[in-house]
Amino acid sequence: MRDAYLIGAGQTAFGAFPERSYRELFAEAYEHACERVDGGIEQTDIDEAVVGSLGVGGRQLGLSGPAVTEHVGLHNVPCTRVENACAAGGFAVRQAVQAIRSGMADVVLASGFEVMSDMSGDVTKYWLGVSGETEWERLTGTTFSGVYAQMASAYLDRYDATPEDLSRVAVKNHGNGAKNPKAHLGFECSLDDAVAAPEVAAPLNLYHCCPTSDGAAVAILASEDVVDNYTDERIRVAGVGAASDHVGLAERDSYLGLSATETAAETAYDRAGVDPDDLDFAEVHDCFAIAELLAYEDLGFCERGEAPQLLREGVTDPDGDLPVNTSGGLKSKGHPIGATGTGQVVEVFDQFTGRAGDRQLAEPRYGLTHNVGGSGGATAIHVFENEEVSG
Amino acid sequence: MRDAYLIGAGQTAFGAFPERSYRELFAEAYEHACERVDGGIEQTDIDEAVVGSLGVGGRQLGLSGPAVTEHVGLHNVPCTRVENACAAGGFAVRQAVQAIRSGMADVVLASGFEVMSDMSGDVTKYWLGVSGETEWERLTGTTFSGVYAQMASAYLDRYDATPEDLSRVAVKNHGNGAKNPKAHLGFECSLDDAVAAPEVAAPLNLYHCCPTSDGAAVAILASEDVVDNYTDERIRVAGVGAASDHVGLAERDSYLGLSATETAAETAYDRAGVDPDDLDFAEVHDCFAIAELLAYEDLGFCERGEAPQLLREGVTDPDGDLPVNTSGGLKSKGHPIGATGTGQVVEVFDQFTGRAGDRQLAEPRYGLTHNVGGSGGATAIHVFENEEVSG
Repeated sequence: MRDAYLIGAGQTAFGAFPERSYRELFAEAYEHACERVDGGIEQTDIDEAVVGSLGVGGRQLGLSGPAVTEHVGLHNVPCTRVENACAAGGFAVRQAVQAIRSGMADVVLASGFEVMSDMSGDVTKYWLGVSGETEWERLTGTTFSGVYAQMASAYLDRYDATPEDLSRVAVKNHGNGAKNPKAHLGFECSLDDAVAAPEVAAPLNLYHCCPTSDGAAVAILASEDVVDNYTDERIRVAGVGAASDHVGLAERDSYLGLSATETAAETAYDRAGVDPDDLDFAEVHDCFAIAELLAYEDLGFCERGEAPQLLREGVTDPDGDLPVNTSGGLKSKGHPIGATGTGQVVEVFDQFTGRAGDRQLAEPRYGLTHNVGGSGGATAIHVFENEEVSG
Repeated sequence: MRDAYLIGAGQTAFGAFPERSYRELFAEAYEHACERVDGGIEQTDIDEAVVGSLGVGGRQLGLSGPAVTEHVGLHNVPCTRVENACAAGGFAVRQAVQAIRSGMADVVLASGFEVMSDMSGDVTKYWLGVSGETEWERLTGTTFSGVYAQMASAYLDRYDATPEDLSRVAVKNHGNGAKNPKAHLGFECSLDDAVAAPEVAAPLNLYHCCPTSDGAAVAILASEDVVDNYTDERIRVAGVGAASDHVGLAERDSYLGLSATETAAETAYDRAGVDPDDLDFAEVHDCFAIAELLAYEDLGFCERGEAPQLLREGVTDPDGDLPVNTSGGLKSKGHPIGATGTGQVVEVFDQFTGRAGDRQLAEPRYGLTHNVGGSGGATAIHVFENEEVSG
């Protein structure tokens, strides 16, 4: 089984760009990623492309993968669109790794895009519940924030946690996002502001919910056989894990964690030969504040019920033991659905190659990305290792 | 690189089943596939699932992959939905092969489903052009049959071919489909009837267009390391090829062939170490009659312009040198978009395991499947070898 290496990654700014087409966004991210391959890369070097997109934006309705890759001149290589709701990008990365490990490709584009700001009323209405379960959640009136609100209610009821703990996620992630020039909501917020925000779906308020964004992100992966041709960096995909779960909350055993994340993390850690303690940073899927708390526990950063303590103690702050969402996360950097998972990989690339500016961590060796579809119906997790940094 | 083997495949009937849910269809195909694994298979044996669906039917809008796999109890394994318009199923098979060859999975479900008969007016309107290019074709009023009609016009203009040659595709495929109990339009049609049918988009008439269908199909693939645990049959995925192209016709160099098919075929033949002459049968993507003619040429069954001759001479009849679409093809068996590509693999399984009933060919060794997305924006091709049959 050949290893896959991350040789370049780039993205557009995330935000509201109703005047820009999805193809234009994709092209910008693609060019950004190519520019950042140290030794340069030719279009003809790319053997395959995987494109993640939810595709609710009503553009190219079928074949949206080939529709964006042809726009950058890649109108010949195998191109597959993958969709696992908000985890489309993470699964695109996983598929790119499989393509390389299979021996069927040496250089693969893992990418994602979404346009969320320029949608018709109907599509927006759909979107509010699109990533939850359709028949028993959306069609009965449950919004997507309502789904996560149920998890937040269960969590606050069960553990020593308060809405203020949820707000700490916003304060931390906005603090990080304010240092990220690509962030959609790149401003700081105080704990007071985050606590006082208007209610969306109790107990979740506005600052407990991420925006949805327009944007695109592209990661370029290469096999161990050819990585030398492109870069001296050695960013290895050390572990990959993925799992699915019941799409609807009501079918699950518990609202206090996502079993897909637990299963995927176990696989990814096992394949990478690491423990959560080995991680130097993580990008986790904080679509709602409660999701970041659950992620800490599902990913083994702490025991059940201890996530608020990590936030209160600053463990996941940029200067803490395990910085989480240095990019700003979905909350501040933004959430262009299909591009979110590959966007997380851009932060990994930035951190490992000293491109993270004011967010730069000191010589990280292991970084994790955690991308969730729906309310946990599918999760993709990757552990990346910077082989230049010794343990 | 480990080889992948086809150990089971099954499907629902294809047809109009507005009273059946997409989950129910998937479950039936899944159970059918599992039953046909000679040595039996447990749900816990399945490491991963790939689900192809266009998803225009308006059911689960995101995460439709996990939504169907959870329904059969597979709510834990990695599950990825892939979509490349009408080639979703073929790309699902390809991704399953990559998963196995990567060493990340031993037993993988490659599947597809679609519900086309129970759609709202809006969705139907979208559908008519959904698999063509959106901005320059659909939104300017070109229907999907209109797109293929342009290719048919170009072909009839350029070569010694008539609308009657197009009708021969319908006669042959309906003749085959009449022997397939799973076919949507399982009746014979005469050449006179096929020629006299009402016009849809000149020069294409009703018998030059396939129906769209409800249905699901599942193929189960296993690595060479574990195939012995499941079956004594040895149906190897000998070659895989895929490619993309400009989604819209206007951007292409020629209307007289699909370059994605040519490229994908070259790869698949090369990897399988075979020539078109070695094939004993093929399932090709005959969404419109012209598509089957172009496929003969793109796949190297004959020279450019000679496809009508193959039909006139009966070369691709069931008793010809290279039977094509013994299942009935999209024209007669039906076209449940995301399930079509995996449905082709069911025919391969039937032919290789003596389950094809009145359609049974005598000891085929090599069979090809050819699945096209849109008007050729993406193509996936597989060459299967029955290793029990010596050359």
